[in-house]
Order: sequence, then structure tokens, then C-alpha cells
Amino acid sequence: MNSFGRIFRVQIFGESHGELVGVLIDGCPAGIPLNPTLFQEDLARRRGGQQKGTTPRVEEDAPLLKTGVFAEKTTGAPLAILFENKNTRSSDYEKIRQIPRPGHADFVAHQKFGGFEDYRGGGHFSGRLTACLVAAGVVAKQLVGSIEITATLMEVGGENSIEKGIDKAIAQQDSVGGIVECVVKGLPIGLGEPFFDSVESLLAHAIFSIPSIRGIEFGTGFAAARMFGSEHNDSIIATDGTTATNHAGGVVGGLTNGNELKFRVAIKPTSSTPQQQKSLNTVTGEQEVFLVKGRHDLCIALRVPVVVEAVTAIVLADLLLLEQKITRVN
Amino acid sequence: MNSFGRIFRVQIFGESHGELVGVLIDGCPAGIPLNPTLFQEDLARRRGGQQKGTTPRVEEDAPLLKTGVFAEKTTGAPLAILFENKNTRSSDYEKIRQIPRPGHADFVAHQKFGGFEDYRGGGHFSGRLTACLVAAGVVAKQLVGSIEITATLMEVGGENSIEKGIDKAIAQQDSVGGIVECVVKGLPIGLGEPFFDSVESLLAHAIFSIPSIRGIEFGTGFAAARMFGSEHNDSIIATDGTTATNHAGGVVGGLTNGNELKFRVAIKPTSSTPQQQKSLNTVTGEQEVFLVKGRHDLCIALRVPVVVEAVTAIVLADLLLLEQKITRVN
Amino acid sequence: MNSFGRIFRVQIFGESHGELVGVLIDGCPAGIPLNPTLFQEDLARRRGGQQKGTTPRVEEDAPLLKTGVFAEKTTGAPLAILFENKNTRSSDYEKIRQIPRPGHADFVAHQKFGGFEDYRGGGHFSGRLTACLVAAGVVAKQLVGSIEITATLMEVGGENSIEKGIDKAIAQQDSVGGIVECVVKGLPIGLGEPFFDSVESLLAHAIFSIPSIRGIEFGTGFAAARMFGSEHNDSIIATDGTTATNHAGGVVGGLTNGNELKFRVAIKPTSSTPQQQKSLNTVTGEQEVFLVKGRHDLCIALRVPVVVEAVTAIVLADLLLLEQKITRVN
Amino acid sequence: MNSFGRIFRVQIFGESHGELVGVLIDGCPAGIPLNPTLFQEDLARRRGGQQKGTTPRVEEDAPLLKTGVFAEKTTGAPLAILFENKNTRSSDYEKIRQIPRPGHADFVAHQKFGGFEDYRGGGHFSGRLTACLVAAGVVAKQLVGSIEITATLMEVGGENSIEKGIDKAIAQQDSVGGIVECVVKGLPIGLGEPFFDSVESLLAHAIFSIPSIRGIEFGTGFAAARMFGSEHNDSIIATDGTTATNHAGGVVGGLTNGNELKFRVAIKPTSSTPQQQKSLNTVTGEQEVFLVKGRHDLCIALRVPVVVEAVTAIVLADLLLLEQKITRVN
Repeated sequence: MNSFGRIFRVQIFGESHGELVGVLIDGCPAGIPLNPTLFQEDLARRRGGQQKGTTPRVEEDAPLLKTGVFAEKTTGAPLAILFENKNTRSSDYEKIRQIPRPGHADFVAHQKFGGFEDYRGGGHFSGRLTACLVAAGVVAKQLVGSIEITATLMEVGGENSIEKGIDKAIAQQDSVGGIVECVVKGLPIGLGEPFFDSVESLLAHAIFSIPSIRGIEFGTGFAAARMFGSEHNDSIIATDGTTATNHAGGVVGGLTNGNELKFRVAIKPTSSTPQQQKSLNTVTGEQEVFLVKGRHDLCIALRVPVVVEAVTAIVLADLLLLEQKITRVN
Repeated sequence: MNSFGRIFRVQIFGESHGELVGVLIDGCPAGIPLNPTLFQEDLARRRGGQQKGTTPRVEEDAPLLKTGVFAEKTTGAPLAILFENKNTRSSDYEKIRQIPRPGHADFVAHQKFGGFEDYRGGGHFSGRLTACLVAAGVVAKQLVGSIEITATLMEVGGENSIEKGIDKAIAQQDSVGGIVECVVKGLPIGLGEPFFDSVESLLAHAIFSIPSIRGIEFGTGFAAARMFGSEHNDSIIATDGTTATNHAGGVVGGLTNGNELKFRVAIKPTSSTPQQQKSLNTVTGEQEVFLVKGRHDLCIALRVPVVVEAVTAIVLADLLLLEQKITRVN
Repeated sequence: MNSFGRIFRVQIFGESHGELVGVLIDGCPAGIPLNPTLFQEDLARRRGGQQKGTTPRVEEDAPLLKTGVFAEKTTGAPLAILFENKNTRSSDYEKIRQIPRPGHADFVAHQKFGGFEDYRGGGHFSGRLTACLVAAGVVAKQLVGSIEITATLMEVGGENSIEKGIDKAIAQQDSVGGIVECVVKGLPIGLGEPFFDSVESLLAHAIFSIPSIRGIEFGTGFAAARMFGSEHNDSIIATDGTTATNHAGGVVGGLTNGNELKFRVAIKPTSSTPQQQKSLNTVTGEQEVFLVKGRHDLCIALRVPVVVEAVTAIVLADLLLLEQKITRVN
Repeated sequence: MNSFGRIFRVQIFGESHGELVGVLIDGCPAGIPLNPTLFQEDLARRRGGQQKGTTPRVEEDAPLLKTGVFAEKTTGAPLAILFENKNTRSSDYEKIRQIPRPGHADFVAHQKFGGFEDYRGGGHFSGRLTACLVAAGVVAKQLVGSIEITATLMEVGGENSIEKGIDKAIAQQDSVGGIVECVVKGLPIGLGEPFFDSVESLLAHAIFSIPSIRGIEFGTGFAAARMFGSEHNDSIIATDGTTATNHAGGVVGGLTNGNELKFRVAIKPTSSTPQQQKSLNTVTGEQEVFLVKGRHDLCIALRVPVVVEAVTAIVLADLLLLEQKITRVN
């Protein structure tokens, strides 16, 4: 349901306009250094308010390490990290409840949960919960050690320059999407399983848990469908498995092959565009033109790279524990 | 590991050149009609040997319903379906074991399993196991009832005509890839969960368990990253959730929204190209030019649509059971 | 690890002398009435300080419903319930860390977690976490509706009268154990699965998660081993499955049979006896005579019945959801 | 459902009078020696027909290692072991289908699976499937190495001598039960988790998957409920955790403590007693006196010790893998 992982098990909870959001991590080895300072950099990368195109809502985002940590090290018991919600203005949302916002979960959540959902600001569906993913990612990064995970925003609004893409959005007064590429260096050979638990399966599973993701491709990805086999195959050139090219993106047969793991993800334009939109007024049964109020990003993709890194780290920490490349006590 | 699903639980096993491959399904409701004839159409679609571009290896592919079926109906006990391997020529593979084939799992499997892997014909990593996925898919299709799942090969070797793409491969004496689109009609609103068990997460997880898949995108997919929010948003026009457009591909907030579910997958060109290739001879430590022997498809993508349908049906059957849209006794 | 359940999934966390303990419930249906008052009775039953033989440590035990509840009903999102720890005196424990207390997890936790464990008051191993089990049980009881779960303390210190057993303990200035019987009325036929997920398997699994439990028996239990088959068999006397006797305790073939579910559990005497004890001083390597300080129960069994009810309710809620006897939206 | 384990994952399938029963093991490390001969001793211990009080039905019980083994070693791929059913006489059972046998799953299976169950000889509920548990146990024993697991029948029909107990049953022409004790030597400290995955929880879960088990107790067990704390506590006497007594049965706080793990299980008398019994004729609605036909054990407990060892080995193999005490490649 709201959990991921077999050994390093991550579960997120909370609502955008409730008291808190949080993450519970079970199966984290003991002895891992952990204190609030370690979370600052990644949480700052995720947080809006500092750059053009991101929302002016700024939560303090101070991670409260409530359980599973003692003397600044993990204890081996479940790790609970909470974020209090301080800066909420629910009234923005209550007014428009009867008009489900396009691209948001308003309508489907209402149907699925029979009207009992917390609808304020998207409730449990809110992007606010990505703070929890990032926090879990910080813990996972501590675990994976020297393995280097780097996600980069490669494209915004169809432009290769982020600046240009954002300016386009501002000029158009409309939201835009983007493409993020993630590269992982230093992985051992053989993570993953054939078929159901292939590395691609697990990473794609985790990546699509990030709101707004519309696609993922590994290595050459969709372009591979237009290549000949003789072009696409990566020939092995050294006994450590190094290949001459890396069209496979570091995964063969569902397993890491020791080369760089590489994948790209597509992020849709922020659903809460400043443009007028139409939707159904579920009370009157009429289509209505309306403006989404609240504070929103013109380009949510700006905040996605650190979340991609986080869920990648979560997947890899779990696999490394399973393959006994990470010890249970540090 | 080699299993998928929470309630309708599918596990595959077996090796390409061992005695058999099979699938075990746990959690299948009782009373579902099942007999070997029901499997024929889908297994025939997966099987090679009937069309240009597919392998001349033809297994009989008779599904042996060994357990969990009584009087041609499921009993509620675990369902074991076996396929005997009859037409195997292991010697093809043994000769070249020391040269790991590019694009195949030979090298990574050897590393992961310390040399204990069954290397004959790819062993457990073989595409032969997709027969098991298809068989599980047939059972799942019986379960999902009137929900219609259709996967179509849209593009081969970069050509919109399959014929043209295959001819190109034949002319070039090289393997090619393709693009498959899958559309699902008749889904209820609200399957899936926010975040980790989003419908995209579960489908992507299952889809990447199919060998040769390099990417997946939902709805407008990667193209969404280049759209404005006002273009991309699908406005709701009726109380049943129908939207004017379907850029979202039928999923919002991780949940089905009642519109057509739509996704596309990229399939790489068959790794076993008829072209000469280079790889490392792991015994001599030298690069060698060699030809992959054995019987292979020029375009594995031809056989993928039915497998895409199968894993989609498996995911949906599991979700429908969880949401109590399928009953436990039929 | 620290979680239980397939659909109604319960996870506990926290430490005795940390900031809080808590429970996270995923998969709880939407629309279930929930407010702090509903928890009071069961939490009071678990809490010490009110009767002879229980610890004078009294936490306020106010359940903080932090997420997953809106307008006093569950929303379908994960439910986080926290209990703050207010009344802790860690110094009691720090002094004696080097002498692991017999019957407690001090020594094994130290070994397992490499010395990183939070040792104060048993840390994550503390009986304090049973407040979380009870809280989850309250939610589960709301779910199971008219099914009646009643656990009763049948025996204390070998006496059939609780009063007499406690008086014996007080007179002897030593701790005592007890026997709890649990009876469940109103269950449907057919909960559970043959073999691995038999009702006995699931209940025993959950029951042994309660600290101090040393045994469990269903129906006639250990005494059945001394009966003849013709005495032990329960003959069916009505089409609803009613049996003339109930030696099976309501479970046959791993499945509920529609009769009363009945089991008994054995609770060891509280490890923290007021008597002088011996243990190893792990620093000096010498055996030492010492007294366990801190506030403890003479008979922990007094507080166990409500915990037995709670985990029983958790198991049954999960099974009833799986068997679609509880709906996903209330 | 029909599976157990987190890493070393065991799933059983098949029916008493179908074509086969089998077990699928996923997550077994590579390189473990395995051939049919290794299974003979344990399968012979389980098999009836050799001693007084066991059924004359003798299956050949030749384990067919169909997948996951290559050159007599495990490959790391899923391991399928099948047993063909050769010696079945279904007609024995068909005649009496309308009278559900007391103590058997006939009635509950019929209710749960809506009449679609394979009712012949108990179908999937048959004790025949314990051959699969034993086979999985043989693999698990290979994994756990020098750890010694010994289950012994301590009591039959209330007698401490097996001979005497069986003679009593024969004299009385009635079935009897028994008590089995299991001792495990050589375990490391720290297997298991506090609360939900305590060693007792996991072992009890697995043990109650064996048909006919009615109770389990660890260490002093039910007798502990009648002891004083000062008597029951095991004082630590050496830095390796050795305790002066072992009332805890080797488990404290849910974790192994390095002493002998010890538990006892109660087995009910065989339900198929040779005595006349009463049950409901579900067609006529009348109580009927009848004799269970077919071939049955007077004392199923005679065959249980090896099954107890098997499921114990399965639990321990899984925990040892999780704690990285067993390597993933041998």
C-alpha cells in the first residue's frame, strides 16, 4: 500500500494540511550516523521558494527524528521521522472542493474513499509527502556508502536550458514539465533478479511513486526501439564487465552489470497552472471555468531530482542489504 | 524475488533447457472455468515460428494444469501450470559459454550466482519463461471479466508498418526493436494507491519483468514534458469522471480515473542478432568476434503484445481483488 | 520485521524512554468512526497503577490521532497514532546497563545491534509498546463489528482466583505469571488458509508478539494429546456447522468452522521480580547479586488480556478484509 | 496464503488425489549440493507403512528436482520439487462426500470455496502435502549447516513410551495423539525481532501450518505461568550468554539468546479413528453413524517429528539469511 522495500522498508504517511507528514523506516541497520543536519541539503533541494518557478510556500522542514535513533546513531529499531505542518491555509481549498481540479487526485480520491478523504490541499496525495521520501533517501544514502547517485534536470518545458524553460513558462503564464536523468556510479554486479524483481522493475515501481512522473526509460530507452541489434548491443571489453558502450543503461537481464546505471524520467507540467481551466462542478453538474488558487510551482520538475535520487537510494539500499553488500550492523 | 502480486500471487520458475518451465498462482478465487483450450490463443500469439521474424524453435506449449483445478474449475488452492521443454538443443550453447553474449544475462548471471547458474540457453533468464507469464495472464483475464485489455505492436524498427520494419531487418540481416501500446477499457475508478502502489508503479513493475523492455510511458508520456499545463490537463466533463482529453492515460494521483488506461512500452532489438559481434572471451581475456548460434527472433517485439496483456491482467486482477471488485468465490 | 498483516497492516515503533511510541496502520478502510474517547477503555485496561500487582508508573496514554483521520472518521490513508512518553526516569536504568537483567532483552539486544540499541528501560523491547498494540486493536475492533472478542485472565500464580494469586505474590515478594483465555463469537466459516496461513498460524504469530507469552493452545490444546480420537472429534450437528463439542476450539484444517474460536495463552512471571537476582557483570566478568530497580508489575498477566484481544482483532480484521467480509469503504 | 518466509520463500501446492504435490522454493542461495538421495532419510521418516500405527498407504515419494538445480547444485533460481501421486483410490472418498468427516476440513473447505474444492482425500488440505514441507526442510537443513535440529516424540496417547501408547491405541481400536519436543543447538545470538517477528512468532506460525498441531510452548511453557519470577529467570553466567537454567527455551525478548532453543508441540489424535462416528449428512440433514474408510494412521504424531524439524529449519534458514549468517552464494 503505502510502503516499499523488502528489508529496508519505507512507509510514508500524513496529509498536506493535517498536523504532520512522516516516514517510518523499518529494517535499517544499526550504527548508521544520523542527525537533523544531515537532512538539510537534500530537504533544501526539494523545498520551494528559493528559485524562479517554485512555490512561495516554505515549510521549515525540520526533520524530527523521533524513534530509532540514539546518541545520533540508528539503533536497529524502526526509525520515525516527522515533519510538522505549520504553514497551511486550508481555506484556499475548501471553497473549491466541489470542483475537482484537473490533473489532481481530487475526483479519484473522492470516489475511492467514498467521500471520507481529507481533501484539503490534496490530503495524503499531496506533493508535501515527497519530503518524507527525501528524508528516507537521506537515510538510504548513508547506507549505500560510496555509491554515487546523481539526478539532474536535463530539460524544462522542452528547452535544454532550465533558465530558458522557466522564462518561457513565466512569459506564457503557464506551467511546464521536464526531463530528469539519473546516473548511479559504483554499483556491484548482480543486483536485482530476473523477471519480477528486475532492477528496472523495482526502480520503475519506486520512481512512479513520485507524483507527476509520466514515463521512465533505461539507457537508450525508447530510442532503442529504433536501433538495430548490432548497434544497440554493448560489447564486454574487460573482465570486470565494462562495456564499450552503455545502451543498456547498466542493466542486463534485470541485473546490474557493473557499468553506470542510467535512466531518464518524464515529468508532466504542474497541474495547478495559473491559467484558467475548466472542470465539472460536481454539485451543479455544470462545467465551470475557474482558477486554481493556493501557492504552486510553475515547474514541479525543478524539485524532482532530489526525490528521484531518494527513491533510487531506497531501492538500492534494499537490494544491497538483500545481497549482503551492506551489513546489518555498521 | 520471482513472484508478483499481493492477493493474486504469481510465481514463475524453470529454465530454458531444463525439464520444464512453470507458473504457480496462489490466491486465485474458486470457481473460475479453466481448461487447456482457453490458453491456446494467447500461447499461440506468444509462440514463434509462424511469422516472418520469429524463431523457428517451436515448443508445443501445451499447458499442463497440474493442481488447483478440479472438474475444469479453479478450486481456490494454488494453481500449478507446467510446460515441458521438449525441443532443446543445449549443445548450441555449451560451446560458447566462455564468451558471454552481449545484451544477454550470461555475464551478470555468472557473477551473481558464482558460476552455479544453469547457463544453457539463458537458463532461468530465458524468454521461454514468458510462456508462464502468458499462462498466468490467461487466468487473470478470466478473472477480470468484461475488462478489455488490448496490446498492439505500433512500430517495428522505427517503421509504423510491421511488414516494413521486418523487411528492413531481413534486408539488413540485423535484429530490430519496436513499440507496443496497451489500452484497457472498462476499469472502475480508484484502483491503485497514492505513492508506492500507484497503478503506474505496479504496472511498470510488472512490465519491466518482461525481458527486452527499455521504457514505459503513460498517456502522453515523455511528450508531456514538453507541454504546457493548460494543454496537458484533462478537464472532467461528466460525473462518471470522463475527461475531454486523455493525456493522463487514465491515471491520476496514482489511481485509475475511469477513462481508458493507456501506456506504451519500448522493446529493444533482439540481442541475438545474426550479425557478427564482439565480446570478451573470459577464459583467454581477449576480445573475440563471434556469431550467436541457436534459433532466434529477428524482432522479439512481435511476440511481446500478448505478454504485455498478460502482466497487465495480472496487475489488474490483483487490484480488483484488493478493492473487492472481484469476489473470492465465483 | 515490526509489522503484521497483509491488508490491514500494523507497524509499531518507539522506545520506552524516547520521546514517543506509536503505531502506523495502513490499509484501514475509509469511513470508520475514530476519536480519542474510543480508545480510553482499552488503554485503561492495559495501563498499570490501578490495581494491586501493577506498576505505579502511569503514563497519561492519550492517543494522538495524527494522520489518516478527518472529521472523526478514517480517510483510507495511513493512520498514525502516537503516545508521548512523559513519565520516564532513565537514570534508573543507566546505572545497571553493564548487568543485563535476566528475562529481559538487554543482553540479546546488545549483541544483535552491536551496542547501538537504546537500552533505557528496554528501549524498543519495552512492554510500553503494547499500548500501540492496544490502540491498533481498538481500530480493528471498530472494523470487525459485531464479532465479539473476549480475553479473560483465568489463573494467576497457579491460583484460579486472581485475588489469591496476587496475594501470594505479595506475600512472597516475588512476581507471578498467569493464564489468559480468549473466546471469539460470531466469526464466519472459512477464515484462514490451509497450511502456512492457517488461523492458528496467524493468531499464534500475533500472540507471540506480546512480550512474556510462553505458550498458546487452541481448543483442548495440550490435553488433546492425551485423548482418543473418538473423544476429541467434534461431530457436526447442524447445517451451519455447529458441533456437539468444541475440542477443536473453532478451527479445523486451519480454517474457522463457525463455532466459538477459543485459545489459551501462558504468561511467564514478570522478569523484574522484587527478589534479589544474579547476573553477569559484563564489564567485570563476575556474577553479581543485584536488585532490579524501576517500577514494575508483580504480575504482568493482569495487563495482558486487553493486548490479547487487540492482536486477535488485528488478525481477524485482516482476514475479514481478505475474505471480503469487511468492505473497503464503510 | 500458501507461502512462508521473507527471503527463503517456500510455497506448497497440490492435492492428495490429484496428479502431484510439490513445493517451490524461491530465494535459495546458489551452490548448495542437492540430489534426490539427500531427501531419502527425512522422507522415509515421514512416510507411513513401516511401523505400527501408521497408514498402509505408501507413496514412493521420489522427489523430482525439476528446476533450480544444475549439476547437483542449486543455481539461485527457483527450486521446484514435485512428488507424483501414484497410489490413490479416490472412490474411497467420493461415496462419503455428503457426510463431512469430523476433525477434517471437509465441511469448512466446502463452505470457503463454494463447493469448488477438490474433496478427494482432503484435497489440498491433505497431510500428503507435508511431504512438500519435509522436502523444503531438507533444503533448509543443507543451508543451516552445523546447526542441529532434533525433534523427538516424547509422549503417545498420554504414555511416555511410544510402544505403550501405540499398544493402547491398538487395544482400544481408537486413534491417539502425542507430544513432540524440538531442540536446536548451535544458533547464533540475536535471530528474530522484537514483537511481530519474534522467533516464537515465526516458529509458531510455521509449526501451526502442520496439520493436527493444537499447541506450542517454549521452554518451560505453560508451567511457567505457575512459577515465581525468581525461579523462572535464567541468570547469565558467561559472556557468551550461557544461562544457568533454560526456562526461556533459548529465546528472550523475541530473540535467540545463544542457549538451546527448545519448544514442545501437542498433536491431536488422528481424526480418522477406526471407531464409528457421528456427523451430519448434509444432503438428508440427518445425523448419521458412519465409519471413515481409507487408509489412516492410528497415531499421526509418529510422523510429525520430521515435519517439525523441517518447518523449524525453514524458519531458521530464512532468519539466518536475513541476518547474513548464511551467504547468498555458497
